Amino acid sequence: MTNLRKELYYIVFGTESKAGKTFDVFLLWTILFSVLVVMLESVPELGSRYSREFFILEWVLTVIFTLEFLLRLWISPKPVAYAKSFWGIIDFLSILPTYLSLFIVGYHYLLVVRIFRLLRVFRVLKLARFSSEAQVLVDALKSSLYKISIFLLAVVSIVTFMGTIMYVVEGGEEGFTSIPQSIYWAVVTVTTVGYGDMVPHTVLGKFISSIAMIMGYAIIAVPTGIVTVEMAKRSNATRECINCHKSVETESTYCRHCGVNLKA
Amino acid sequence: MTNLRKELYYIVFGTESKAGKTFDVFLLWTILFSVLVVMLESVPELGSRYSREFFILEWVLTVIFTLEFLLRLWISPKPVAYAKSFWGIIDFLSILPTYLSLFIVGYHYLLVVRIFRLLRVFRVLKLARFSSEAQVLVDALKSSLYKISIFLLAVVSIVTFMGTIMYVVEGGEEGFTSIPQSIYWAVVTVTTVGYGDMVPHTVLGKFISSIAMIMGYAIIAVPTGIVTVEMAKRSNATRECINCHKSVETESTYCRHCGVNLKA
Amino acid sequence: MTNLRKELYYIVFGTESKAGKTFDVFLLWTILFSVLVVMLESVPELGSRYSREFFILEWVLTVIFTLEFLLRLWISPKPVAYAKSFWGIIDFLSILPTYLSLFIVGYHYLLVVRIFRLLRVFRVLKLARFSSEAQVLVDALKSSLYKISIFLLAVVSIVTFMGTIMYVVEGGEEGFTSIPQSIYWAVVTVTTVGYGDMVPHTVLGKFISSIAMIMGYAIIAVPTGIVTVEMAKRSNATRECINCHKSVETESTYCRHCGVNLKA
Amino acid sequence: MTNLRKELYYIVFGTESKAGKTFDVFLLWTILFSVLVVMLESVPELGSRYSREFFILEWVLTVIFTLEFLLRLWISPKPVAYAKSFWGIIDFLSILPTYLSLFIVGYHYLLVVRIFRLLRVFRVLKLARFSSEAQVLVDALKSSLYKISIFLLAVVSIVTFMGTIMYVVEGGEEGFTSIPQSIYWAVVTVTTVGYGDMVPHTVLGKFISSIAMIMGYAIIAVPTGIVTVEMAKRSNATRECINCHKSVETESTYCRHCGVNLKA
Repeated sequence: MTNLRKELYYIVFGTESKAGKTFDVFLLWTILFSVLVVMLESVPELGSRYSREFFILEWVLTVIFTLEFLLRLWISPKPVAYAKSFWGIIDFLSILPTYLSLFIVGYHYLLVVRIFRLLRVFRVLKLARFSSEAQVLVDALKSSLYKISIFLLAVVSIVTFMGTIMYVVEGGEEGFTSIPQSIYWAVVTVTTVGYGDMVPHTVLGKFISSIAMIMGYAIIAVPTGIVTVEMAKRSNATRECINCHKSVETESTYCRHCGVNLKA
Repeated sequence: MTNLRKELYYIVFGTESKAGKTFDVFLLWTILFSVLVVMLESVPELGSRYSREFFILEWVLTVIFTLEFLLRLWISPKPVAYAKSFWGIIDFLSILPTYLSLFIVGYHYLLVVRIFRLLRVFRVLKLARFSSEAQVLVDALKSSLYKISIFLLAVVSIVTFMGTIMYVVEGGEEGFTSIPQSIYWAVVTVTTVGYGDMVPHTVLGKFISSIAMIMGYAIIAVPTGIVTVEMAKRSNATRECINCHKSVETESTYCRHCGVNLKA
Repeated sequence: MTNLRKELYYIVFGTESKAGKTFDVFLLWTILFSVLVVMLESVPELGSRYSREFFILEWVLTVIFTLEFLLRLWISPKPVAYAKSFWGIIDFLSILPTYLSLFIVGYHYLLVVRIFRLLRVFRVLKLARFSSEAQVLVDALKSSLYKISIFLLAVVSIVTFMGTIMYVVEGGEEGFTSIPQSIYWAVVTVTTVGYGDMVPHTVLGKFISSIAMIMGYAIIAVPTGIVTVEMAKRSNATRECINCHKSVETESTYCRHCGVNLKA
Repeated sequence: MTNLRKELYYIVFGTESKAGKTFDVFLLWTILFSVLVVMLESVPELGSRYSREFFILEWVLTVIFTLEFLLRLWISPKPVAYAKSFWGIIDFLSILPTYLSLFIVGYHYLLVVRIFRLLRVFRVLKLARFSSEAQVLVDALKSSLYKISIFLLAVVSIVTFMGTIMYVVEGGEEGFTSIPQSIYWAVVTVTTVGYGDMVPHTVLGKFISSIAMIMGYAIIAVPTGIVTVEMAKRSNATRECINCHKSVETESTYCRHCGVNLKA
């Protein structure tokens, strides 16, 4: 029994063996297919015409994913740790909406959360490279999280202030009917999205908007700067030469200062 | 008396003691609540229905903040310095609009300036880290201020010129009714906001717009480059010289400003 | 015969000789002219009025380009390699649509693929500089391809998820008629394009949109950071190792790949 | 006579003397005023009401600027060099439209070219700092010009191709009436401006647009990367210590390695 569990563990959680790879590839295509099913079901022309087929497909796929989830829980050496991990939660959320749809109507579309399971694709393709390259990305974002949250709070403050000023200036006219509404306009403007569903009509309003736009255009530089600097730090992975103790690139085979073989 | 003032000073201005932390957290929630009150009051359905409740709440909150402001003035060792500081001005502006609303109608919404008081949240959470991380951000922006103002003046010139050309080209047609109006269009276009409330209709106008867009798309690189470079400079760990207190590179042996031996 | 082929080769493929340069310049103007012809033909007022002239012009230009393509195949030392190369494929696609238009109507506009042939202009202008400067750009993009594809998959996931949530929230109202439609909205929003053809109408929808916008505004920092770091790496002057021909830092004494003494 | 010219030269072209500074400040305000006059004249309500006042003001200002231009030509040691320089051309273009308006109607608005004369403001404020800081900006842009022009040609190619595909896909429907029109749409989309005056209506069109948007969203990284790298290069101005020959920051007073006084 334990042997079966171990073997299954290598297939389901691992990616090195051939069976493990086949399992992952099959799973990825099933996930992609199930996301497509949910999407197409939402298209009115298709959803009403093939409602029965969609209903069956959805349940079949949910049963498959439920079995997979139970299997993972069973074979995992630490089931609780898996269930609490990022992937465990995503796996659980990928089956939940179908069961919820028995009680509540209209939320089974949230099945598209399955799309995040596709991120496993990187585990299949070149595993080693992923761990290093994606790690750089994730690490850079993590260590800039604090700076970025300062930035976001500043943006929220600016947007709240700008929105209120515009509410006062535009006088509740066309679109600017309340402060929350005007803050929504400020977000649309400062982020340079610019839907155009709400636009200033007074001369002063247009002047203030222009300032908000140029400000939004300039402060995009802040998160960009934060992330770039963090990435640059991480990308310059160097180590000391074992012979001359000067700094060399991590991936070097020979020291570029003294010529010693670093990998010998 | 002086002892009471000192003690209050540590609670109100400080964040180290437990009482100081509790005071700050309570203050932050009160500020957040007061901003929400102002926002919700502006929503027509709520504002007219609960106008009395909003009126009372606003005055209660303003009285609380006024007492807090007076307290800060009283306990501060240098009351004038506090009143003139960034936080002092924000604190004052956070109570002013309610009193102004006694004389002038419609400006009490400016109470949302209180949102900026929320930036104090960083003083409460991990104080030490904030002073260093936020300082990097603020320093980087400060020292790129001059370069960014050159950039902004260039943008204003381009936008003015582009707007005028479009006014001449589009011939006062649909939207492009005056030069200031056309400059507003140019700002909307160059910053890539693109509301769509004013769009070119002539072939030449569309061609010029395309140039303006690609230009705007490319020159975003300038502020981004400026800020990134400044941040990169600052991210190289620095410390304060023990003698002249200017910032020096961590690995320096001698201060590069005053020449003192840092490792002695 | 072989001599003629060799001579032609230097004219058609080379850019050093005067005849080669003249050939390339003439070709570039012909390409530009042919792209303009296709464009102008599509303008209804011109296309219907001068349909015969456009028809003749298009065939004349296609015959010229066909002869050029056959000539290149004939004089090329490795015709198959040329035909399979980037330029060979572009050259072939530049004549294909006209012939296809004999069988299928409406696709001859794809002739504008010829525009990509214009990229040869860089071969004519300062050949040497191009190979180094453009190479830096292409290399930087190539080596950040893997990181950027992680980023793009993440964006696709976010956009799918955001779109679905908005479909559920906006309840199939105005525009948000299906999940694919809502995903299109999410792409328009997260990339800060913001057409405004679909906008949220519910309060919750506007709140979620605001989050999507700020997210889109912030994550632009990721590809920017990736490309900047790669370019910075590459901009540090490198040269080719005399032994293993891999790229090494200019100031190196020993090649860090094969250990050969570069300064000997 | 020569003395008068020399003295005037120091006042008009120089900024060190008090008279020179006063002259420049007065000139800047006159320029700003004249730009405002042109702008306000274009506002229909004002232009028609005060047409006589605007006419007089414009001629008075043009005469002042003409006299200034002639004065500059007269006192300049090399009048031809001045007339051919960037500032000489801007100065000339700043008076030309008024004279042209005697013959051609409607182009006198081009007087706003005067706005570029305002860039002289940097010569007045902190002259020394400007020469170094702005120089960094201009140098960085200059040396990235070649890379940026490759980028721009690539963008033009992509936009042309995308526009044509959309013309074929959308079938001349609503807005996509010709290839040039569709290219205009592609520019609006790829640069993330997104007016919304032309939007895709077919499913395939929306899919292709989504790709164009994500592409535009990602390739903004390229000019950003180019400019950032160039600026970073330039900002790291270092020189060799005169004593220990290690690299030190240019603005250092003492070497941070050996402590020698670098400015002695």
